[in-house]
Amino acid sequence: MSAAQQDLKIDGRRLWDSLMALARIGATPAGGVNRQALTDADRQARAQFTQWCEAAGCRVRTDAIGNLIARLPGQNDDLPAVMMGSHLDSQPTGGKFDGAYGVMAGLEVLRAIRESGRIPPRAVELAAWTNEEGTRFAPSMMGSAVYAGLLPLEEALAVVDADGVTVAEALRQAGVSPSGEDPGLPMAYFEAHIEQGPVLEAEGKPIGVVTAAQGQCWFRVSFQGQAAHAGSTPMNMRADALAAAARVVTALNEIGKAHAPGCATAGRMVVTPNSPNVIPGSVVLSAEMRHPDDAVRSAMESLFHEAVAAAAREHSVQVRTDKILEQPAAPFAAACMQAIRHSARQRQYPCLDIVSGAAHDAVALSRIVPSGMIFVPCAGGISHNEAESAEPDDLAAGCQVLCDSVLAFCHGDAAGR
Amino acid sequence: MSAAQQDLKIDGRRLWDSLMALARIGATPAGGVNRQALTDADRQARAQFTQWCEAAGCRVRTDAIGNLIARLPGQNDDLPAVMMGSHLDSQPTGGKFDGAYGVMAGLEVLRAIRESGRIPPRAVELAAWTNEEGTRFAPSMMGSAVYAGLLPLEEALAVVDADGVTVAEALRQAGVSPSGEDPGLPMAYFEAHIEQGPVLEAEGKPIGVVTAAQGQCWFRVSFQGQAAHAGSTPMNMRADALAAAARVVTALNEIGKAHAPGCATAGRMVVTPNSPNVIPGSVVLSAEMRHPDDAVRSAMESLFHEAVAAAAREHSVQVRTDKILEQPAAPFAAACMQAIRHSARQRQYPCLDIVSGAAHDAVALSRIVPSGMIFVPCAGGISHNEAESAEPDDLAAGCQVLCDSVLAFCHGDAAGR
Repeated sequence: MSAAQQDLKIDGRRLWDSLMALARIGATPAGGVNRQALTDADRQARAQFTQWCEAAGCRVRTDAIGNLIARLPGQNDDLPAVMMGSHLDSQPTGGKFDGAYGVMAGLEVLRAIRESGRIPPRAVELAAWTNEEGTRFAPSMMGSAVYAGLLPLEEALAVVDADGVTVAEALRQAGVSPSGEDPGLPMAYFEAHIEQGPVLEAEGKPIGVVTAAQGQCWFRVSFQGQAAHAGSTPMNMRADALAAAARVVTALNEIGKAHAPGCATAGRMVVTPNSPNVIPGSVVLSAEMRHPDDAVRSAMESLFHEAVAAAAREHSVQVRTDKILEQPAAPFAAACMQAIRHSARQRQYPCLDIVSGAAHDAVALSRIVPSGMIFVPCAGGISHNEAESAEPDDLAAGCQVLCDSVLAFCHGDAAGR
Repeated sequence: MSAAQQDLKIDGRRLWDSLMALARIGATPAGGVNRQALTDADRQARAQFTQWCEAAGCRVRTDAIGNLIARLPGQNDDLPAVMMGSHLDSQPTGGKFDGAYGVMAGLEVLRAIRESGRIPPRAVELAAWTNEEGTRFAPSMMGSAVYAGLLPLEEALAVVDADGVTVAEALRQAGVSPSGEDPGLPMAYFEAHIEQGPVLEAEGKPIGVVTAAQGQCWFRVSFQGQAAHAGSTPMNMRADALAAAARVVTALNEIGKAHAPGCATAGRMVVTPNSPNVIPGSVVLSAEMRHPDDAVRSAMESLFHEAVAAAAREHSVQVRTDKILEQPAAPFAAACMQAIRHSARQRQYPCLDIVSGAAHDAVALSRIVPSGMIFVPCAGGISHNEAESAEPDDLAAGCQVLCDSVLAFCHGDAAGR
């Protein structure tokens, strides 16, 4: 990185102000944000984004799924751009930073470049992906998945919300119409995001260099035993569905612990009839496993199936296991990680390699272009919650690293070129 | 037992017909019975009981909590009677046999004695205890507990149902008024009942000699951990309330298995927030332990508390344990057991010593007079269920043993005198 590039400092205060201004759109009384995809609040946020980007010298185009892509021209606009991005939509009881941070950090980078008066060698783009959260319209990461060719456009447009409104109708109602242009894929993609986990805060590191998004698989495990009187049914004549399910919960926990940095979780359990003096007749349990290495996750899955079979045998219950979701791991590009790590070291921000447990738009992008993610700490690791909180200094540090990484790729200093 | 007494045979067909006639009062479309305490259906059943008993030569008295006690006079009516009994009320979706069998078996004994033309040396009584089930008015076994002096009358009369109706009002509405007489406590009490468990059926024995009702204690265990993202919270930074609760479920199961004929059960579990990709933040679990020996149950309880503490430590969660019920074990009288066993052997009914896991009116009576219980098999051990079912031959065998045991005590052949 040249000294001239290193001089380009983002404005942490302006970034914070933009975040707070955006958080007023869809603000909830409890201090959070309800800005679900393609609602009126989301429409307002999209309009604000467009206005800010245009004021920073960008053209903003819209694609057929409603992704907004702001483009700051470069010296040679025929070269592939360097893209930043994240999402403006939120959970129903979401926070101010999930998604919003990545978009506002990108905006701050565009503003800083614009203000410097220097025109980068190639264009810099900033995407606000449609419907990352997936709460109104499933699946999540809809816009970035369509952009990356992972989800057919027609399929996405036909998805309906709880009121029967399709994505296509919701786009029309939000006044979204595709602008038609398409300058092609970028050379690389960077996304800044709050960690949504407790590691960076606990380790005292403002910057996480995300090495991969974990692959994951979700199962529904249904145990069928025999409901019976808890006083008059001897232990050796029971078919106790909860006793069997408890074995699987414990096994999952042990599988997770034995395969760090992967994890394994039983999050949901429904017991029937769920009465203190009745032996549980049936239990439905959720089980999910995640790991950045798909081969390791596959081994975890085998151990899980063995534990389920052993629990069923031990407690004389029938069991059925349905896989309801599987996503492969997404390792991020070495060149992107190097650029992020290099910036953090130059700026003397303590940093840490970290795996993303959650999925992000960058996972979709990583399937088609070299991609990288920058994590910053959030208080207590709490996210998808109105109490979501992050420190202005950490947010500024992540934004500075985003800026440096983007410029490194623009100037061709990065190994990825 | 003298040869003459042994000749007194009950009529199994008449017993079955009485049971079926009684089951029409409060019959449900699914073949069960809904005859909750002091409802209109219960009132009808009480009237039918009174009519049948009077036709069998009995006087029927009513006490202040509405217990109906039919009395067939003996040669010396100043001697304490031998009492039989059970209950006419049912669960909301109850079966034809729970309670009803013990009352109709007693009625059949009265009819058989009456028809024989022989007057027993002392009176024989048959009680229909008020509100054994406790579903409309808690607690269960209300009438027998008041009779035995375990529950103050005024306290019982003041209990309200879900509509705010007191027991006192419900008794008035059902036309119940105390008849005032009280010939004093009986010399012994016998109750016939379906097992409500699977043991007799599995062992092929029509008669269970109940040696004790298990003592029991119930706990509510509340685990408080930290809800967090299942993908981004490393295993070693979790406070997973469900993982902790699962350890306790497994420990309970092992405690139960190690202390036969006692048992231990986790029947109810409520997980919050109960979402597949969120680490459970809190769990409320029910835990109950039963054993016929209170000292052994106390040892089971200690192991349970150790397991709760270990689970909380292992998973970094807070835990609170509340004891919400405790009942001491009720061993039945040796003399009553001997009379039951003797009859079964004389009649060549295979029999088995068995512990009652459930509580019954006989438990209350056992606190004040020598008491015994006779169990007969029920299909699949299923009870508190409209599908409750029992074989006519088994019901007749249990009734015959009841008759023989009562007469043995009447004649002073039994060791209990």
